[in-house]
Amino acid sequence: MKQQSLWAVPLGGLGEFGMNMLALRYGDDMIVIDAGMMFPEAELLGVDVVIPDITYLKQNRKHLRAIVLTHGHEDHIGALPYILRDINVPIYGTEYTLALVKRRLEEHGLLDDATLRQVKTGLKIEIGAFEIEYIHVTHSTIDCAALAIRTPLGVVIHTGDFKIDPTPTDLLPFDLHTLANYGKEGVLALFGDSTNVERAGYTPSERAVLPRLEELFRAAPRKVIVSCFASSIHRIQQVIEVAGTVGRKVGFTGRSMVNNVELSHALGRLNIPDGMVVRPQDLKAFDPKKLVVLMSGSQAEPMSALSRVAVDNHRQLTVDENDTVILSSRIIPGNEKPIFRMIDHMFRKRALIYYEDGGRAPIHVSGHASQEELKLVLNLVRPKYFIPVHGEFRMLFRHAALAQQVGTVSGEIFVIEDGQPIEFTEEGAYRREKVKAGRVLVDSGSLEEIEEVVIRDRQHLSEDGVVVPIIAIDKHTGTVEGSPEVVSRGFLSADDGQEVMAGAREVVVRTMAQSNPEEMADWSVIKEKIRVDLKRYLNKQTAKRPLILPVILEV
Amino acid sequence: MKQQSLWAVPLGGLGEFGMNMLALRYGDDMIVIDAGMMFPEAELLGVDVVIPDITYLKQNRKHLRAIVLTHGHEDHIGALPYILRDINVPIYGTEYTLALVKRRLEEHGLLDDATLRQVKTGLKIEIGAFEIEYIHVTHSTIDCAALAIRTPLGVVIHTGDFKIDPTPTDLLPFDLHTLANYGKEGVLALFGDSTNVERAGYTPSERAVLPRLEELFRAAPRKVIVSCFASSIHRIQQVIEVAGTVGRKVGFTGRSMVNNVELSHALGRLNIPDGMVVRPQDLKAFDPKKLVVLMSGSQAEPMSALSRVAVDNHRQLTVDENDTVILSSRIIPGNEKPIFRMIDHMFRKRALIYYEDGGRAPIHVSGHASQEELKLVLNLVRPKYFIPVHGEFRMLFRHAALAQQVGTVSGEIFVIEDGQPIEFTEEGAYRREKVKAGRVLVDSGSLEEIEEVVIRDRQHLSEDGVVVPIIAIDKHTGTVEGSPEVVSRGFLSADDGQEVMAGAREVVVRTMAQSNPEEMADWSVIKEKIRVDLKRYLNKQTAKRPLILPVILEV
Repeated sequence: MKQQSLWAVPLGGLGEFGMNMLALRYGDDMIVIDAGMMFPEAELLGVDVVIPDITYLKQNRKHLRAIVLTHGHEDHIGALPYILRDINVPIYGTEYTLALVKRRLEEHGLLDDATLRQVKTGLKIEIGAFEIEYIHVTHSTIDCAALAIRTPLGVVIHTGDFKIDPTPTDLLPFDLHTLANYGKEGVLALFGDSTNVERAGYTPSERAVLPRLEELFRAAPRKVIVSCFASSIHRIQQVIEVAGTVGRKVGFTGRSMVNNVELSHALGRLNIPDGMVVRPQDLKAFDPKKLVVLMSGSQAEPMSALSRVAVDNHRQLTVDENDTVILSSRIIPGNEKPIFRMIDHMFRKRALIYYEDGGRAPIHVSGHASQEELKLVLNLVRPKYFIPVHGEFRMLFRHAALAQQVGTVSGEIFVIEDGQPIEFTEEGAYRREKVKAGRVLVDSGSLEEIEEVVIRDRQHLSEDGVVVPIIAIDKHTGTVEGSPEVVSRGFLSADDGQEVMAGAREVVVRTMAQSNPEEMADWSVIKEKIRVDLKRYLNKQTAKRPLILPVILEV
Repeated sequence: MKQQSLWAVPLGGLGEFGMNMLALRYGDDMIVIDAGMMFPEAELLGVDVVIPDITYLKQNRKHLRAIVLTHGHEDHIGALPYILRDINVPIYGTEYTLALVKRRLEEHGLLDDATLRQVKTGLKIEIGAFEIEYIHVTHSTIDCAALAIRTPLGVVIHTGDFKIDPTPTDLLPFDLHTLANYGKEGVLALFGDSTNVERAGYTPSERAVLPRLEELFRAAPRKVIVSCFASSIHRIQQVIEVAGTVGRKVGFTGRSMVNNVELSHALGRLNIPDGMVVRPQDLKAFDPKKLVVLMSGSQAEPMSALSRVAVDNHRQLTVDENDTVILSSRIIPGNEKPIFRMIDHMFRKRALIYYEDGGRAPIHVSGHASQEELKLVLNLVRPKYFIPVHGEFRMLFRHAALAQQVGTVSGEIFVIEDGQPIEFTEEGAYRREKVKAGRVLVDSGSLEEIEEVVIRDRQHLSEDGVVVPIIAIDKHTGTVEGSPEVVSRGFLSADDGQEVMAGAREVVVRTMAQSNPEEMADWSVIKEKIRVDLKRYLNKQTAKRPLILPVILEV
C-alpha cells in the first residue's frame, strides 16, 4: 500500500485567541482536535459567540471520524453546540470534560443525538489510522490532557492548554514521563500552546495563591466573598480548604459556579467536608464572621452573581461595609472598564476589595506555561517539526523564536495561521494551498450565523441611527399620493429633530418634483436619488451620517 | 465685611478618569480649574467625546471670572471648545498649554472671541477674591503646574497632574521649595492627583527610558520607528538625542506629532540640532540604517499614522522586515485589542516590535506620581483638609487611605464625587447638598450634545437592527390602502430574511383585520398593536428583538 501523507489543517486559534480547532488527516481518516468558541469584540454588534468556519470539515465530512477534546474550557468545547448539527461525529474526552459537554448539549437539546466517548489517560484509543493517548497535564481546570497521536508517519504531540505545576492541588502532576518517552522514541511534530510565551520564567504553582488567601481570610472582619472562574476547580478546592482552616463555612452562588461545583463534586474531584456548606437561601442570615461565599462573575459579566451583588440586586447576598471581596482571577484585557466599575460600586459600600495588583503574594496565578516551561517541553519532546498554536500572531511568532533558541527542533518550525495546511510526507513537511477558514458570528439566541453585511448595517445604525423616508405611489397611475413621511430613531431626539425632519420631508418632496417620468417609473432610481439628497441635507444640517432607508409604498 | 465661605464644587474627574473640572467660589467670585474631556466607553454608540455637565456653571454664570488650566492634556483642556459658547470667560494657562488651546479653538473657529491670558510660574495673578500662583511640576508633557490659590479663608493647593521627577530631561525640576513654603505657612485644603495611587514606590524618572532606547537604536539593523503620545515632549526630546548619539537622523509623521513638534520647537522647548530632520517626503528614500521616525498612533487610533503604516496604507512610510518599531507609551486599558492587532500586522512583516512588556529596562514611564511621591506631597503640604481628585472611586478612596496613613492632614479627608460640594468656613468644612453634575455626550462633528435616549435607541438598533412596518391609510375614509410593507436593516440578511419578512407582512395584515374601528381611528393604538404583535412574531421566528418602528402614512 502506498504511503499516504499526513495533513494538519488549523481551523481556529492560530492568529487569534480562542476558538481552538485543528484538523488532522491521514489518508481517508480525519480527526478534529477541539472545537472552541471565542467571545466577540465590541464592534461585532449583536454577536454573542464567534466560532470557526467549518466549511473544510463539511467538505470532508465523509472522512471525519471524531472530535477529540483536550479539556473542558469554552475556547476548546464551546463551538460544539453550533457545529454538531453539521458534523455529528463521536466526541472523545476525559470524564470532567465530557460532563461539561453533556450539560452544554443538553441545554441545546442536542444530547440525544450525540455520541460521547470517555477517555482515560494512560490508555490508547484507535480512531481510523490514528492511535491516540491522552497524557495528563496540569492547567487551571481539571482533567486536562495533551494528546500523543500515533500516525503511520510518526507521532504527533498536541499539548492542549497546560502549565507544569510541580505541586498541583489534586496531587496529579503533569505526566512528564510519558511525554519524555515519546520524545525519546522520536516525535514527528509538536503543536504547542503559546498563550503565555510573552512571560519570562515559570508560572507559579496553583498553590502559590494559598498564603495570600489565608492571610486575607484571617484578617477579614466580616464575610469573605471570593470570585473566580467557575471551572477553576483547583482554586475552589483551595478556598474551601482555607475556609476550613480559619473556621468558616462555605456557600456557593451564581449559576455556573453552582453547576461546576456540583459536577466536580459528583465526580469526586472536589472535596467538600461534611457540614461545610451553607445553602444559598441561608447565606443572608448566616453569621458573616463565619462565612466564605464563592461566586462566579469575576469578569463583571452583566447578569453574573458578583455584578448583581455589587449593585444590591441579588436575592441571597449583599456586600456590606467591612466585607472582604477577593477577585481571584485574571482581569481579562478589554474587561477592565466593567470590572473596575463593579469594584468601585463595592468600594462605595466600604467593602475591602482585593484584586490582581501585581504586588506581593499572588491572589491569582495563570494556568498557562511561561517561557521556561515551554522550553522544558521543547527539550522533552525534541520534535522534528514544531508548530506553535493557541495565540495571536505575535505569540506564535515568539514561540517559534523561543524554539529556535532552544534548538531541539531538528526539522522546520512553521508559523502558520488558520487555514494554512501543512502536509507531512516521508520526505519532509510543506505548506500547502490555503483552505477556507475564518470566523463565523453567531447569535446565541437563534444559534444562527450572522452575516458580515448585517454587522456592517448594525455598525452604521449604531453610529447615527436610522432615517426612513417613505413615499406612497399609486400603483395604477404611478403618481405620488399624499405627502412623504420621514421617521427616524437613534438620530436626533424628538425635540432637537423636529426642524431637521421637517426639512427632510421638504427635501424628499423637492427630489420627487425634480425627477422626470422615467426616473419616477424606476423605483430603485428614485430611492437612490432620495437617499443621496437626504444624505447631503442631513450631513449639512447635523454633520451626522445616519443610515438612510428609503421606502416606496404601493397604494 | 462679613466673612464669606469658600465652596469647592467638583464637576468632573472625581469618580471617573478624565474630564477634570473643579469650581472654586468665594463670595461673588468663582473660578474653574481645568475643563477636560474624556473618551467614551464603547457602549456609548456614536459618541466621540464626553465632557462635564456645566449646568452649575451656567447657573452661576455671573460669578464666573476665569478658567484656570494646569496643563495642556486633553483631559484638562479638551472640553473648552464645547463649553466656551456658554461660558466665555478668560482662560489662564502657561505658554505651551495656551498654545495648544489656541490651536484647538482655531480649529473650531472660536479663537477670535476667546480671551487667553498667559501665566508664568513664580508670579501671582489676581482673579477676584483669589490670588493664584502657578507652581512648576514635572509630568509627561511640558509647562505643567500645580496651583496655589490664596483665598480669604486660607490657601488651597491643587496639584494638577504631576510626578516628582528628580532628573527631568529639560532640567526644570518640580518646584518643591514653593510647595514647601506654602506648607510651612499653612494650607487650608489640598486637592491631589490620584491617578497612580495604586502603584507602590516611586514612578521612575523620564530619563529611565534612555538606556533601553539607546540599546534598541544601536541594535537596530534598519530603520527605527518610535511611537509615543504627541504631547510627550520629554520623550520626543530623548528620542532626538539618542538618534544623534547613534548617528541617525529624525523624521516626524502623523498630524498630532508634527503639530506638537512644531509648536514646542517654536517655543524653544524642543531642541532639534540643525540638519537633523528628514522631511516627510524624503522618508521613503532615506537610508533606513540612518533613520529614526517619530510618529503618533501608539493607541492604534483608526486613522493614525502608525495604524496606517502597519497595514501598508501610509504615503510616506512602510514597515519592512527587520525594521525596529518601538511603542514608547502605555497600552491604555480597553485599547489592547486594536493595539495588538496593529502589532500583529507588523510582526507578520517580520519587523522587530518592542512594547511595554513589564520586563527589564522600561520603554515607557508614567507621568503620574506613585505612592511614595504622593506621601511626599502630603508631608510637604500638610493641609488642614484633603480631597483626592482625578480618579475612579477606588483611587480616590485609596488616596484618602494613604493620607490617613501618612497622618499629616490635621482636619478631615473628604472622599467625594462629581457634584458633591464642600463648603469651607472659619469653623470647619462641610459636605453640602449636591449640585447637578454628570457627563454630556458630544458628537464631535456637530459639536452637539447627544441625549441619553438617542444612545439607548442606538444600542437597541445595534443589537438586532431595525424593522419598519408601514401601512398607508386614506386620510378621508380611514381605510387601509394597498398592502403593508415591512423593511429592515441590520436584522437578517436579504436571503435569510425573505420568508420571515413575508410572514411579518401577514402579521401586520392580520393585526389590522382584527382591529375594530375605534382602534383603527387612533393611530397610536394601532401602531402599538402592530409593534407588539410583530415583536412576538419576530422573537418567536428568530429569537431576536429588533427595534420596531411602525409608520402610518396618510395618503
